[in-house]
Amino acid sequence: MASPLLQKLIVIGVGLIGGSFALALRQAGMVKHIVGIGRSQKNLQRALELGIIDEVASNPISALKDADFVLLAMPVGQTSNIMAQIAPFLGSSTIVSDVGSTKQDVILAARTHLARHLTHFVPCHPIAGTEFSGAEAASTHLFCDKHLIITPLAENDDQAIKLVSTLWQHCGAKISCMAADQHDRILAIISHLPHILAFTLMNHVRTHVEDKLEEILRFAGSSFRDCTRIASSSPEMWRDICLANQEWLLKQIDAYQNELTNVRTILANNDGEALEKAFANARQTRQQWLKSD
Amino acid sequence: MASPLLQKLIVIGVGLIGGSFALALRQAGMVKHIVGIGRSQKNLQRALELGIIDEVASNPISALKDADFVLLAMPVGQTSNIMAQIAPFLGSSTIVSDVGSTKQDVILAARTHLARHLTHFVPCHPIAGTEFSGAEAASTHLFCDKHLIITPLAENDDQAIKLVSTLWQHCGAKISCMAADQHDRILAIISHLPHILAFTLMNHVRTHVEDKLEEILRFAGSSFRDCTRIASSSPEMWRDICLANQEWLLKQIDAYQNELTNVRTILANNDGEALEKAFANARQTRQQWLKSD
Repeated sequence: MASPLLQKLIVIGVGLIGGSFALALRQAGMVKHIVGIGRSQKNLQRALELGIIDEVASNPISALKDADFVLLAMPVGQTSNIMAQIAPFLGSSTIVSDVGSTKQDVILAARTHLARHLTHFVPCHPIAGTEFSGAEAASTHLFCDKHLIITPLAENDDQAIKLVSTLWQHCGAKISCMAADQHDRILAIISHLPHILAFTLMNHVRTHVEDKLEEILRFAGSSFRDCTRIASSSPEMWRDICLANQEWLLKQIDAYQNELTNVRTILANNDGEALEKAFANARQTRQQWLKSD
Repeated sequence: MASPLLQKLIVIGVGLIGGSFALALRQAGMVKHIVGIGRSQKNLQRALELGIIDEVASNPISALKDADFVLLAMPVGQTSNIMAQIAPFLGSSTIVSDVGSTKQDVILAARTHLARHLTHFVPCHPIAGTEFSGAEAASTHLFCDKHLIITPLAENDDQAIKLVSTLWQHCGAKISCMAADQHDRILAIISHLPHILAFTLMNHVRTHVEDKLEEILRFAGSSFRDCTRIASSSPEMWRDICLANQEWLLKQIDAYQNELTNVRTILANNDGEALEKAFANARQTRQQWLKSD
């Protein structure tokens, strides 16, 4: 087994993503000691029981002192506060990275609160997850064959980027680099909009059918189940993501509504030919994607 | 093994649903001889190779003569034509049923073309399917633990309803009865709207990102995959379903648009509290459904 790259890893937010990162690195023999920091002592204790972390930080500040690597894995809404809290206590060689689903806001927070540490702060986003959350949901294989996007800072130390890439490769991830605004636009399209649509579908059914909800949902099949799976995702996490990526997401919602209005018009006009064409285009686009994926 | 209830079953449209019905009844020992009728000789030959049917009807009209049971399993848009074609040749004791995803239009067609056979025409809808189509996609277990909805006619012979129920029970389905308009409204909510939303999401991405499509979709993960799975469904079948259920579906699209506009407003207002509440409501509704399902 390879000798550990990290003597001490600190995971702030030992949930689905932070916990899975810890499990995967431990499995790969890449880390000697893992310390967990978080809001919920219950979740941290569970992470300890599950062998995700070796220690719950009794004193987060002193825990930071000799850390090789600090992973910020809490909901993105807490990024600024946490950065401000840890900044004074970071060792000069400690590498800090995050897993936020949005990058422009995280980078803005870093420029504000980690200004003297920007060489060693590498913004990242693993495109992986499930609708479940908490340490309980963590899995060693969550990142296998999944994309890990790095949106490097001009200030970044090459060695810091290299280490972050290596760690994620040991988690099984495929590494890509791109600009933060490109990342946020792409994620608004392929992830944030679909989550909004799924949450909205559940709320539409809830508000639209009211008291007859159970009578109706009992007939719902696999299509409804799949379309709404991500509506079981963490409300807090998705609140933060949507607010952080508000500008791109609003554009996506507007464009989607236009597309939906188009198909509504076609249907209202009984235009079977145009309707079949629209469905065939959608199907073809999806089949091409699946082939190339 | 039980003695066959049916000596001769005719399946018109040996695709995912018709083919799976044939396979399940054969597996249950409920049918002696299965004859396939359809537009595509290639698909019928494949159904023969796969052992789904015993015979491709060389002459559909004479094949009908001594059939116990005729299943209409072609896209709903063809219902009227097929009913008109078979009506003159149906034996007085032959039971006819369908699998259409909409029921009011099928019943209207039956009243027009099968007026003298209404005692023996039992409108049905199995809530089961996949995004695949054709005999190739048929499976013995497609209907296991799935709902089969009967929307009986006042004219229906009780024995005819009983036989249809028994056959579907042997396919593993759970039988429910309701009025056709209630069926069409419920299906508009839990199935037809989600299909429109999934087709529209693929078309939104296709038209919105244009030439950069592959660059963007390569990063799409399981949430996008699940949300759009049913966008790979048959365009012809879904054209017919949407047109047939136009009135209910338009109402659903409008109500969904309103719900989406509400969440857009909340997001535009940076109202994190309302956003989290909306997501939490959606999640709770889904968790309750999964628990009761």
